[in-house]
Amino acid sequence: MKLATYHDGTRDGQLWVVSRDLNRAVPATAIAGTMIDAIETWDAVHPALQALSDRLNAGQEPFATPFDAGRCLAPLPRAPQWLDASAFLNHGRLMDKAFDNPHNPDFEKIPLIYQGASDDLRGPLGPMHFPDDGLGIDMEGEFGVILSDVPMGTQADAALQHVRLLVQINDWSLRALGPREMRAGFGFLQAKPSTAFAPVAITPDELGDYWSDGRIHLRLDVEINERNVGRAIGSEMHFSFGQLIAHCARTRRLSAGTILGSGTVSNADREAGSSCISEIRVIELLDEGASRTPFLTWGDRIRMEARMPDGSAPFGIIDQTVAKG
Amino acid sequence: MKLATYHDGTRDGQLWVVSRDLNRAVPATAIAGTMIDAIETWDAVHPALQALSDRLNAGQEPFATPFDAGRCLAPLPRAPQWLDASAFLNHGRLMDKAFDNPHNPDFEKIPLIYQGASDDLRGPLGPMHFPDDGLGIDMEGEFGVILSDVPMGTQADAALQHVRLLVQINDWSLRALGPREMRAGFGFLQAKPSTAFAPVAITPDELGDYWSDGRIHLRLDVEINERNVGRAIGSEMHFSFGQLIAHCARTRRLSAGTILGSGTVSNADREAGSSCISEIRVIELLDEGASRTPFLTWGDRIRMEARMPDGSAPFGIIDQTVAKG
Repeated sequence: MKLATYHDGTRDGQLWVVSRDLNRAVPATAIAGTMIDAIETWDAVHPALQALSDRLNAGQEPFATPFDAGRCLAPLPRAPQWLDASAFLNHGRLMDKAFDNPHNPDFEKIPLIYQGASDDLRGPLGPMHFPDDGLGIDMEGEFGVILSDVPMGTQADAALQHVRLLVQINDWSLRALGPREMRAGFGFLQAKPSTAFAPVAITPDELGDYWSDGRIHLRLDVEINERNVGRAIGSEMHFSFGQLIAHCARTRRLSAGTILGSGTVSNADREAGSSCISEIRVIELLDEGASRTPFLTWGDRIRMEARMPDGSAPFGIIDQTVAKG
Repeated sequence: MKLATYHDGTRDGQLWVVSRDLNRAVPATAIAGTMIDAIETWDAVHPALQALSDRLNAGQEPFATPFDAGRCLAPLPRAPQWLDASAFLNHGRLMDKAFDNPHNPDFEKIPLIYQGASDDLRGPLGPMHFPDDGLGIDMEGEFGVILSDVPMGTQADAALQHVRLLVQINDWSLRALGPREMRAGFGFLQAKPSTAFAPVAITPDELGDYWSDGRIHLRLDVEINERNVGRAIGSEMHFSFGQLIAHCARTRRLSAGTILGSGTVSNADREAGSSCISEIRVIELLDEGASRTPFLTWGDRIRMEARMPDGSAPFGIIDQTVAKG
């Protein structure tokens, strides 16, 4: 099942079911008004949503209209919580070199996860506004999960039962502000402006075997100004989503609607390219002695889409332009 | 005007107006169903809420019942965002000594603010559950503000117009987990479990001159097991709430319902005691060569109340017990 949130003038938007091929959509508001309503009452509403989805996919839903990603907000425009990991260690190793981070003895054992801002999550298309293009504007292509309520103390092997939906993410970052915030120890705030999401959140079964071991085993295509710079695969995620959930729930419960990100999808194989500019720049520095690729500026366009082997994009497409705001 | 959220089985609870003396309360659900509804539509609903408050305070509200803090959730049980500063530099200096933090050259110029979890904010009374009493269970007595929508780039001198309500906070902390999370640079996650709030959120005018310069100039009484350990005054806050808001809004807009905390209220005068145990312990270490006061364990009771000069507690009382969960 695929779900989207259409803009309707409210902060939480309107829940729609989208067909598997992303061609058609139908309002689900008679079942659950919003995505957060659906997540909170999942067991009660899931059968009716699934039946609507089945009718839509069978071409038997009379109220279906063409799916319009331009009407999409983030699946959860305002989530109770947004947590973002750095679970691809190849990314972490490169970033430690890029920013000359101090040695972390727990690097392979304890996941790094930051608490992000969940009050203003952004949709897939259109401009992203930043105050200054001297701040090192960068993207980070990621996968993520949306959770049901997770009790405190949930262990990794039991955690995946709390995954309700899968999402695809662009974690916008301001690299000029990150190192100072990391050194100060309180984590990212100014360095992590609003995060953007692909239009469609999907149930794990939509990916078949490509959702397994608590990982999304898909290729993530990343383009800057229509040039592909990344095609890394999700399989190299060192910590599974189950391990990440368990880490977050160690000392408190997590509320339904919590979104948990993988961190930048990154592969050790250099042929896979990079899902963020900082990685590209540090690889250039290591290989060629200097970083050539600039951070983003006004008008630059970022496109990200996860790909199934048949070429389809199960989450739809993130296609955003950097704008002065 | 004083507002509270009563438990009604839903996640966001039910909005009530509370009398100035905290003796009577009346449902406000005919005006706004929940606190977040009221914050989001403040200009539209404020006149009716104020009129209800005026009738309640005048003893002319026939549907008033005795105010029951035992029915209170946090004013915003689930906020769009929870940001917490460390704006009392005396606290910051002591904590840097306690945890041997590296030198921060921007200490007096750039506020330290962490992004906290806002999905599960807790009410004022009853047990707080923790997984293990070996994790350095500690409290932090704070003040805070609840904001309207704040545009990106809002400056400090214009920021205070976005303050809708004032709150009093217990920012529960697990000290054994903080240093590793600070060193790793991604900020607090396991070290900051769910945060608790005094029962009543109040409009700034309720404090008269004790809300000025973007600071709450009240004494915060803090007790552990009925022994007063802190009575610091909010006036020593180095960065005003206006400065803190501007810092948070530098690179993104903030959504209505964002809660911003002051950090632990702390005074240079040792006679003021401390609003958290870590401060007590580092002062003992400096003065006596060893920390005597233990962190909290099962059954320990924490009480916090801000005091007006007439002895009244404008936010009501936080009174929680540490429980194994």
